[in-house]
Amino acid sequence: MSTEQQLDSLEQLRQRLATFAEKRDWQQFHSPKNLSMALIAEAAELVEHFQWLTEEQSWRLGSGKKTAVGLELADILIYLIRTADQLDIDLIASALEKIKVNEQRYPVDKVRGKTLRAEEYD
Amino acid sequence: MSTEQQLDSLEQLRQRLATFAEKRDWQQFHSPKNLSMALIAEAAELVEHFQWLTEEQSWRLGSGKKTAVGLELADILIYLIRTADQLDIDLIASALEKIKVNEQRYPVDKVRGKTLRAEEYD
Amino acid sequence: MSTEQQLDSLEQLRQRLATFAEKRDWQQFHSPKNLSMALIAEAAELVEHFQWLTEEQSWRLGSGKKTAVGLELADILIYLIRTADQLDIDLIASALEKIKVNEQRYPVDKVRGKTLRAEEYD
Amino acid sequence: MSTEQQLDSLEQLRQRLATFAEKRDWQQFHSPKNLSMALIAEAAELVEHFQWLTEEQSWRLGSGKKTAVGLELADILIYLIRTADQLDIDLIASALEKIKVNEQRYPVDKVRGKTLRAEEYD
Repeated sequence: MSTEQQLDSLEQLRQRLATFAEKRDWQQFHSPKNLSMALIAEAAELVEHFQWLTEEQSWRLGSGKKTAVGLELADILIYLIRTADQLDIDLIASALEKIKVNEQRYPVDKVRGKTLRAEEYD
Repeated sequence: MSTEQQLDSLEQLRQRLATFAEKRDWQQFHSPKNLSMALIAEAAELVEHFQWLTEEQSWRLGSGKKTAVGLELADILIYLIRTADQLDIDLIASALEKIKVNEQRYPVDKVRGKTLRAEEYD
Repeated sequence: MSTEQQLDSLEQLRQRLATFAEKRDWQQFHSPKNLSMALIAEAAELVEHFQWLTEEQSWRLGSGKKTAVGLELADILIYLIRTADQLDIDLIASALEKIKVNEQRYPVDKVRGKTLRAEEYD
Repeated sequence: MSTEQQLDSLEQLRQRLATFAEKRDWQQFHSPKNLSMALIAEAAELVEHFQWLTEEQSWRLGSGKKTAVGLELADILIYLIRTADQLDIDLIASALEKIKVNEQRYPVDKVRGKTLRAEEYD
């Protein structure tokens, strides 16, 4: 049994991506502003895969398309990790915090089966 | 020593978000198509924080703004995990795959300090 | 009868928006880079209106929602005109040029009733 | 002097694009929901041109890049017109309405040289 603690996957990716950028001297381009642009550009490539599909079709992708979509999701994750890293934000902690907010904002009794925004529920 | 293996953070989030949606009967709305729209809408809220800032300013956020940005990053991560889950895609595996692709596409010697797209390097 | 030629609507908007920005000393913030961010943030607000609707529902908006969507479309148009203005690009001429490209890229015989991307048609 | 009234450019484009879609039997795919996705995907291609440029560089595009950016702006305009058309929204009227709103929301005295959002001005 190893005495080393296994790093969380996100933390491993963070380190690997930081090294990737450093080796290429890309840190200079990776301002949060620029990274937010790169991130949304990747999000749009995801959207593009689905824009002419029905919702039903979007659940049943062929295997080639599914692999392509997986790589788009990867691109988004990569820029998400890089942005958080530049700003020294803990992604997991933020997500747990946000889930708590959402649990209060969308109580089960009130929103079950509905999709209005929080401010639209009276 | 525990015999249980600790779940990776992303996997923990995936399970928690699936339960969150299930309890609210929101699974019906969470087609990959719809989730890609929700994801890009959150990415845009990130962009909005930076649109009138200089790159320099985007690195030095005040603490209120930094918290707000953290919650936007969380929203993106949440929809990213949900999309991957609906399509049964392993986010971490896809990211590792994509990093490999990027390492071949952007060799250090060729791209050091430059930001052209892969197809623009001759 | 006036001897003056009536200005095209887009040109009228362009002038009015330029004055609007100038009076507020906002020209300094309106780099094409920043405007592209503002534009996509507005496009995302449009997307947000539709993300949980079915396609069918997206055609039959209530009047309040329709007005709100109209104002989002307006925001997109405003930033589109501003971006083109900063770069001295003629929007109408570019659109006509692009329509020509699309007519060649998507010949009626080949694409009738289908939505593949150009590169996916053999 | 002609008795015919010259159509506004946007109206001309609207008609031409409606015909373009009709001939290809694409009306069925052009729900407002789908068009909003196509629109934001095009907006992202604009963003991509600027993501690694400084603001300064984004004002001084080379001629090849400027043409490419013009065609991205065209794509956005095309989907904007199509979306408005599907919902029977008058783009120019909406823009004039929105400019009025902005004039009240951002009085010159209050916002001169500043870029806070309306709700951030006390």
